[in-house]
Amino acid sequence: MSELLVVGSVAFDTLHNALGTHEKVIGGSATYASIAASFYAPVKLVGVVGTDFPDAMVQKLRERGVDTSGLEVAEGQTFHWEGKYTDDLTSRESLRTDLNVFADFDPKIPEAFRDAPYVMLGNIAPELQISVLDQIRQPKLVVADTMNFWIDGALDALKRLLKRVNVLVINEEEARQLSGKHHMIQVANALLEMGPSTVVIKQGEYGAWLFAGEDVFSAPAFLLEAQDPTGAGDTFAGGFLGYVAAKDSVDPKTLRSAVIHGSALASFCVEGIGPARLLEIDRAAIDQRVSAFRSLVDFAHA
Amino acid sequence: MSELLVVGSVAFDTLHNALGTHEKVIGGSATYASIAASFYAPVKLVGVVGTDFPDAMVQKLRERGVDTSGLEVAEGQTFHWEGKYTDDLTSRESLRTDLNVFADFDPKIPEAFRDAPYVMLGNIAPELQISVLDQIRQPKLVVADTMNFWIDGALDALKRLLKRVNVLVINEEEARQLSGKHHMIQVANALLEMGPSTVVIKQGEYGAWLFAGEDVFSAPAFLLEAQDPTGAGDTFAGGFLGYVAAKDSVDPKTLRSAVIHGSALASFCVEGIGPARLLEIDRAAIDQRVSAFRSLVDFAHA
Repeated sequence: MSELLVVGSVAFDTLHNALGTHEKVIGGSATYASIAASFYAPVKLVGVVGTDFPDAMVQKLRERGVDTSGLEVAEGQTFHWEGKYTDDLTSRESLRTDLNVFADFDPKIPEAFRDAPYVMLGNIAPELQISVLDQIRQPKLVVADTMNFWIDGALDALKRLLKRVNVLVINEEEARQLSGKHHMIQVANALLEMGPSTVVIKQGEYGAWLFAGEDVFSAPAFLLEAQDPTGAGDTFAGGFLGYVAAKDSVDPKTLRSAVIHGSALASFCVEGIGPARLLEIDRAAIDQRVSAFRSLVDFAHA
Repeated sequence: MSELLVVGSVAFDTLHNALGTHEKVIGGSATYASIAASFYAPVKLVGVVGTDFPDAMVQKLRERGVDTSGLEVAEGQTFHWEGKYTDDLTSRESLRTDLNVFADFDPKIPEAFRDAPYVMLGNIAPELQISVLDQIRQPKLVVADTMNFWIDGALDALKRLLKRVNVLVINEEEARQLSGKHHMIQVANALLEMGPSTVVIKQGEYGAWLFAGEDVFSAPAFLLEAQDPTGAGDTFAGGFLGYVAAKDSVDPKTLRSAVIHGSALASFCVEGIGPARLLEIDRAAIDQRVSAFRSLVDFAHA
């Protein structure tokens, strides 16, 4: 087992969905990714919160084996995002984004974290993701998440970042946008040419594709009645890299299983509001769900 | 091994796509389904063509073990459909539909076909599908395909049909339309309540779901550069039922493998214009592709 570094946002979310309005929900890419990864391996978290962020939550992360010594507490308020989901949860609208202390976030990787072999660059500005990589000595595997906001507004930086990333985790629509292609094989090839040796394309209610060099793997969707998809992508990425760190291997076989573990964690994530459900489950529940994923795709060859 | 009856349309298609315009392409739901099923079991075909339909094609079907004695030749022209696909092949527009001899199609099931244990009701008017069932003595498994045209225009007949059908094969959009639900679990439950004990929901470039009573199975999509999706759904259904007939079993395990065989055949279908590619391949090629489907979803559990 090896440790992993998670860098990203820590936030309060206000979520509007069919079940009502949920305020001061703990959110952020680094939060979800850390919780997910902590089921598998020791996590080192780097992020920033305001003085309003609850100590109890930081304590909860510590109890899960997350080293929070890289979580800066800055004067001011924690990053706040407010969004409204459609009733079928297939799309959402951002109502309000208050960057607050996150506006000046300039990730400083503590000396003790710079030898981390596995690095998760949560969905933040590509320039910041690059600055994190500049501070890491010799990572074995760097995973980066991104989104349409950066493809639209920071494409050059994103392209520079991709040359230094091993695994790009991206959703289907954004993969099409970034590659300029429609067909999945062409999309994957275009993204692989941008630098990463591995691309994971998340398709939400349709599962995910893993392109690891020549290896192609299809992960099924898990059917359930979702409550809240917030953080599912970050949870996927954290579970994926947590599993890889635990196995300390980056061969395609490990990556395939890592995609299923990431998917299993994401399936739990959406079952509750915010990270609530993730904070309830244990490793046995995850393994049981991984078995359910296997049953879902199993067929006799004859 | 057991035999199967296929009832549906036999047609000429004119297809416009990125590769050009293709005229007098052999088409129709019964044609694709028969070709696909013929890889597995003896097929009895019921349909109608005009005097312009080429004998050579009928001969080709016979050589594949398709009994064409139920293929009526009527005075006039064969059913003709003309359609234009978008360059990414994800949608199409019907430019022209000339029913011709198909306008008066009233399927007469020859006496020798009425004991067929496996029945494929291709995508034709639900009233005609019901009339076919009225002529069959004791089918073991009835598979029906349908489309938005009948959901819009013949919903009552379709609902009566569904009470007598064991397996409904339907695409995702039409499944949502027919069930009035969005979420896949709710969609499947609503369709199962309409009568069939098994529902297959085809998701095109996202694979397919099989709901067989309590059993839920996810079939992956197969990534390839498609040329022409015409007939892929009919090919899927024919391959599915052909496999079931060959195994002479309707247990969920058999149905799971049948979905993969149907998917494998559909993946070949789209690789050529019309049924061209299907007419080239052999059973070994299919089995090889089934293995490729398995590799696509295989992962280690540990």
